[in-house]
Amino acid sequence: MGQSVQFPDNSKPASSNVRGALYPRVTPDFRAVFQVKAPDAQKVQIKLGTTWDMVKDDKGMWSLTTDPLVPGFHYYFLIIDGVQVSDPASESFFGWQRMSSGIEIPETGVDFYTLKNVPHGDVRSKWYYSKVTESWRRCYVYCPPDYNNNLKKKYPVLYLQHGSGEDERSWSVQGKVDIIMDNLLAEGKALPMLIVMDQGYASKPEAVVSTSPSNPGANRQQGGPSTFEEVVIKDLIPFIDGNFRTFTNRENRAMAGLSMGGGQTFQITTRNLDKFAYIGLFSGGTIAPAELTDKSKVKLVFMSYGSREAGSANVKAAADALQQAGIKNATYISPLTAHEWQSWRRSLREYAQLLFKK
Amino acid sequence: MGQSVQFPDNSKPASSNVRGALYPRVTPDFRAVFQVKAPDAQKVQIKLGTTWDMVKDDKGMWSLTTDPLVPGFHYYFLIIDGVQVSDPASESFFGWQRMSSGIEIPETGVDFYTLKNVPHGDVRSKWYYSKVTESWRRCYVYCPPDYNNNLKKKYPVLYLQHGSGEDERSWSVQGKVDIIMDNLLAEGKALPMLIVMDQGYASKPEAVVSTSPSNPGANRQQGGPSTFEEVVIKDLIPFIDGNFRTFTNRENRAMAGLSMGGGQTFQITTRNLDKFAYIGLFSGGTIAPAELTDKSKVKLVFMSYGSREAGSANVKAAADALQQAGIKNATYISPLTAHEWQSWRRSLREYAQLLFKK
Repeated sequence: MGQSVQFPDNSKPASSNVRGALYPRVTPDFRAVFQVKAPDAQKVQIKLGTTWDMVKDDKGMWSLTTDPLVPGFHYYFLIIDGVQVSDPASESFFGWQRMSSGIEIPETGVDFYTLKNVPHGDVRSKWYYSKVTESWRRCYVYCPPDYNNNLKKKYPVLYLQHGSGEDERSWSVQGKVDIIMDNLLAEGKALPMLIVMDQGYASKPEAVVSTSPSNPGANRQQGGPSTFEEVVIKDLIPFIDGNFRTFTNRENRAMAGLSMGGGQTFQITTRNLDKFAYIGLFSGGTIAPAELTDKSKVKLVFMSYGSREAGSANVKAAADALQQAGIKNATYISPLTAHEWQSWRRSLREYAQLLFKK
Repeated sequence: MGQSVQFPDNSKPASSNVRGALYPRVTPDFRAVFQVKAPDAQKVQIKLGTTWDMVKDDKGMWSLTTDPLVPGFHYYFLIIDGVQVSDPASESFFGWQRMSSGIEIPETGVDFYTLKNVPHGDVRSKWYYSKVTESWRRCYVYCPPDYNNNLKKKYPVLYLQHGSGEDERSWSVQGKVDIIMDNLLAEGKALPMLIVMDQGYASKPEAVVSTSPSNPGANRQQGGPSTFEEVVIKDLIPFIDGNFRTFTNRENRAMAGLSMGGGQTFQITTRNLDKFAYIGLFSGGTIAPAELTDKSKVKLVFMSYGSREAGSANVKAAADALQQAGIKNATYISPLTAHEWQSWRRSLREYAQLLFKK
């Protein structure tokens, strides 16, 4: 692929491509353009929302231009003669319980997740030992820009969870959590906080290891805590409070999660109101007043959905019920998005602005 | 794939698999066992060193058991009807200028890169602005376990570079830099240091962006500095010294790199002996006394190779020549490994023990 290649559609390489890859490309009207060299394949497809058949030319090059796509991050796969694989031309992202390809479609007129000339925090990978699972686990921690400059300052903490089939990397990679927070902080729209992103899967050593992405922790279980809840309460929070400069009272601790992570947030916060004051469910259901055993402890319930998700229809009634019960709440419906990362990036932007403000 | 599946070869899922994936597997004699469901494919292969043909059964499952493999990390690819892709069942790693699959083959009798119950540092992703490239760049910084506890302590810094087609993630993911350092520190074998891992590719805004993995910075250029050298000297070192608690004198600054990164280390350190006192080349050539303009400034030249690399034959003569010229040096030949990550993990283990000791 030389310098002389012309792209008459004015397309540009997707920002999610690996260094130097000319495909996939994005057109000015937000179509994705794929090209795969596969002279010996009988059928090549792209799975991106729906499954698109690519068309082969006489040199064995398969091509596809999609319809215009919704802005934001989309998982996709290459399907070669029926085998679903990731595309080596794009970055891989842990989603769908495997290394998936992703493509970034720009959104016109917004820059809240654009890397800008503002002070930058960092994202740290931390190993911690879980007594609950009897294993080492890894979490990621976003530290705001001033964390290293002001060594006596303490910070509130948001625990932020990924969705089913994703992991502790997802919020910082797909979600661009550090860029969103750095930008909000630079604009004075949010307060500095730590954001802890853990893996929402946990098994006790005696248990059969679940290989299914539908972890029981996602359900609104009756009865005892999920193993993940035990990890958060017994291992993760003490580790974070012991190794970072945090405020350790409940008024300075929030949780949120997307999809399965929203279910886990519901379960963990409502069962542990002595530890959390802020609850955020992103595409993760709603909360009824009766589900909050001690309303006085809840500083905020935040519920969001993409407007194209069925669940979005339930948000207003749920908010009204909380309002009538005297429980402070906020809602957000992400315009024209579905169950996808653009809904959750926007939800984080909204939720983060409401946290820890007295 | 249920609990009842039997594996008569006593194989276990590779540690490099994604969560829950039963394949690829590793046998007790270190063969890799692959299985891919592809009923409609005509030919499925694994590229792992050489290219292996898989064999199809009557249910469309393709299988392969390799010969015994060298311990350590190996890149591999799935080839489906001639298209080289990464395997969604394994983690992906940036190598070969794309997201590649990798498989980890255990090494009997060593645990220097095993996650253990020792104090753990962290790896931080940091954004910094390069005036040279006029762009934001990302580096990773390993901070030793006591970095956050002893807030007045300053640290020496090792700048550690990846090879061709890799990036700033490679040393912490493929190289397990944090685990190797945490273990060495726990044993008292190395001194605490920061390790900065940057992307060894850089282009000035006016330049044609190179899409080739063979960056000019890899060559031992005559003439001016490479763009990457300019980034390191003008942007990266000032950023690190401005944002971390570092010793900023040359006696507390080292550089090393593998393969292309060794070439870059040679170029940058020998051209900037006012800034570096320790030079490490891992599978990255040798240094002759005449190439060091001021021998008195060099605290150590370290040269290593895998024993199966042609370059390993040159190491002893190069070391002898340095010795005769009165230049302190150390060498390491990694037993039975080639141009691969196990050589470089071991080289880091050796090199790190020699750094910053007066």
